[in-house]
Amino acid sequence: MEKVFIQLEGRSYEIWIASDSSYQSALSGVLPSATSAVVVSNTTVAGLYAAALQELLKSHYPNVDLIALPDGEEFKNWETLNIIFDSLLKNSCDRKTVLFALGGGVVGDITGFAAATYMRGVPFVQVPTTLLAQVDSSVGGKTAINHPLGKNMIGAFYQPKLVICNLSTLLTLPIRELRSGVAEVLKYGPIADMDFMVWLESNVEKVLAGDMDALAHCVRRSCEIKAGVVAQDECESGLRAILNFGHTFGHAIEAGMGYGVWLHGEGVAAGMVMAATLSHRLGLIDESFVQRLVALIQRAGLPTRGPILDAGDNAGRYLELMRIDKKAEAGGIRFVLIDGPGSAVLRTVPDSLIREVIDACCV
Amino acid sequence: MEKVFIQLEGRSYEIWIASDSSYQSALSGVLPSATSAVVVSNTTVAGLYAAALQELLKSHYPNVDLIALPDGEEFKNWETLNIIFDSLLKNSCDRKTVLFALGGGVVGDITGFAAATYMRGVPFVQVPTTLLAQVDSSVGGKTAINHPLGKNMIGAFYQPKLVICNLSTLLTLPIRELRSGVAEVLKYGPIADMDFMVWLESNVEKVLAGDMDALAHCVRRSCEIKAGVVAQDECESGLRAILNFGHTFGHAIEAGMGYGVWLHGEGVAAGMVMAATLSHRLGLIDESFVQRLVALIQRAGLPTRGPILDAGDNAGRYLELMRIDKKAEAGGIRFVLIDGPGSAVLRTVPDSLIREVIDACCV
Repeated sequence: MEKVFIQLEGRSYEIWIASDSSYQSALSGVLPSATSAVVVSNTTVAGLYAAALQELLKSHYPNVDLIALPDGEEFKNWETLNIIFDSLLKNSCDRKTVLFALGGGVVGDITGFAAATYMRGVPFVQVPTTLLAQVDSSVGGKTAINHPLGKNMIGAFYQPKLVICNLSTLLTLPIRELRSGVAEVLKYGPIADMDFMVWLESNVEKVLAGDMDALAHCVRRSCEIKAGVVAQDECESGLRAILNFGHTFGHAIEAGMGYGVWLHGEGVAAGMVMAATLSHRLGLIDESFVQRLVALIQRAGLPTRGPILDAGDNAGRYLELMRIDKKAEAGGIRFVLIDGPGSAVLRTVPDSLIREVIDACCV
Repeated sequence: MEKVFIQLEGRSYEIWIASDSSYQSALSGVLPSATSAVVVSNTTVAGLYAAALQELLKSHYPNVDLIALPDGEEFKNWETLNIIFDSLLKNSCDRKTVLFALGGGVVGDITGFAAATYMRGVPFVQVPTTLLAQVDSSVGGKTAINHPLGKNMIGAFYQPKLVICNLSTLLTLPIRELRSGVAEVLKYGPIADMDFMVWLESNVEKVLAGDMDALAHCVRRSCEIKAGVVAQDECESGLRAILNFGHTFGHAIEAGMGYGVWLHGEGVAAGMVMAATLSHRLGLIDESFVQRLVALIQRAGLPTRGPILDAGDNAGRYLELMRIDKKAEAGGIRFVLIDGPGSAVLRTVPDSLIREVIDACCV
């Protein structure tokens, strides 16, 4: 097992990256004390892993319940959140309850937000079962639900007490979901670490094939980079926004297509190409770097071009959707741009240039 | 103007207690910077004070919008919270938005929770217009909405950037609401400061009559006591719970009668008598102290006996409702008890004794 430490005053915690079950014996020292534990999962993941996790937790907590939410991004909303609240209240769960988020990004985000707001906050543990969640969403304390008018609009910064990444769960992922997770891995190179990008250029096929050593490196390095950024800017007042490379365009794609039609990582992949192209047109990076990123995204089996969201005014529709993205600030949409290999910057950009890039980067 | 300071590392702020408009000129130094401001109020309070506040804020922010929520505890729910989210999103409000909660406890709690969770957190300012909100709910960062299964079950600890108590707004309060606020004032003596209880025994009629000096002292002293407690235990892991003296019984009364039938302070008043009686039966305080508290509550025009919630098994119904109260922990309901004049303690108590006290203290 490998560990990554997230340093946050009073809210520090560890990410455990395990390729076998040996981590289980170490849990008693780190699990939050509570009188009851509730595993929150979705109907798909619960069938695969909930029984084993409940069994494991029974030696630590007198009660271990399970809540299985409907599966899918389209359920990341208030109604589903309320399934958790209703269940906790009906079972008289008090503040000494700990939640375990067993699943992908949707389960982690919604369970984290439930933990942040149930009785003004109970502890929770992330047990991410997808690559996307292990390398990104389960780490750093961003929790949220979607609103009909935008993704992740309602949420909180609320840190887990522990993150347990069991790499063996990645082997049951559909390949499309694994690829979607790789999109979030690929972002770390251009924004922060070219050595990692070079490593991925040699190893992306191994990662996609489920090679355990490759997955372990990939999850650990992603978590380390993210941990470094989050430790400097927990609540995204500045630097942390660089982790959203590709996400401004990506969120527009997800919202424009209808949540769940494109996977999150697919939107991010096409979005990174757009953001890199934008960076190039602003003179921040060479054309060759854009080509290099496109080649890597392509090898990962991810889309390198955005979908047409509106046959009449496609760029206009993208702009409309991006303006409501929460990273938009009065005065313009802020993009994460690459201002040199391994380095990112935040900038607003004139609409005319954004339109050009969208026109150049959509199917 | 008087100021009370709440000391919380990185989240410290001031409470301003003003009896005239002279405080307004000092605002520019302390208001959060933002590109737009939104005043959240209810339909009743908005008609009285929103225009003046909006006018005042227009010299600090380019945009000042108003959201008027329906008035009443029964609207302290998800649907009303969503009125705020919908409005903010439709107006493309981003993270550089500041919310002003103009109203009583319901407006403050719900606006604070909206601020805590809109785009994972935007700054907010409390502008409490009721005595209850000025002496208690607007101070200390507890925000929440109700759930059909319990009061304040969904919420967050989220501190305002400033609290502005304009005492002149108290003069437009219906007397029943003013009395309800006095209940929260009365709690501070028994739990923390007998000098304040003695002062109230001499001045409670002046407070109820709207004497400005008496109100100023009463708000300032209440805020000081609360600030001291909150600074030691922001997230209610222990000590802070003493501020809930009378509230465990009080919440059961509010829930059992249906939210809004008894005002919050009325439930707390009868609840304090029950909690004091319980303290006496446990041998923690003299009967004479209970009588002294009852006499003061009576002079404030507040109920000293609880309502019958169930003609069949009244005590059983109270117990059932209290068990779901969020201060209940596995193993029993924790009560705030008085273990000597000016001193409080948290204890679980056998059901049989709770039943005795309920039987003795209900109409």
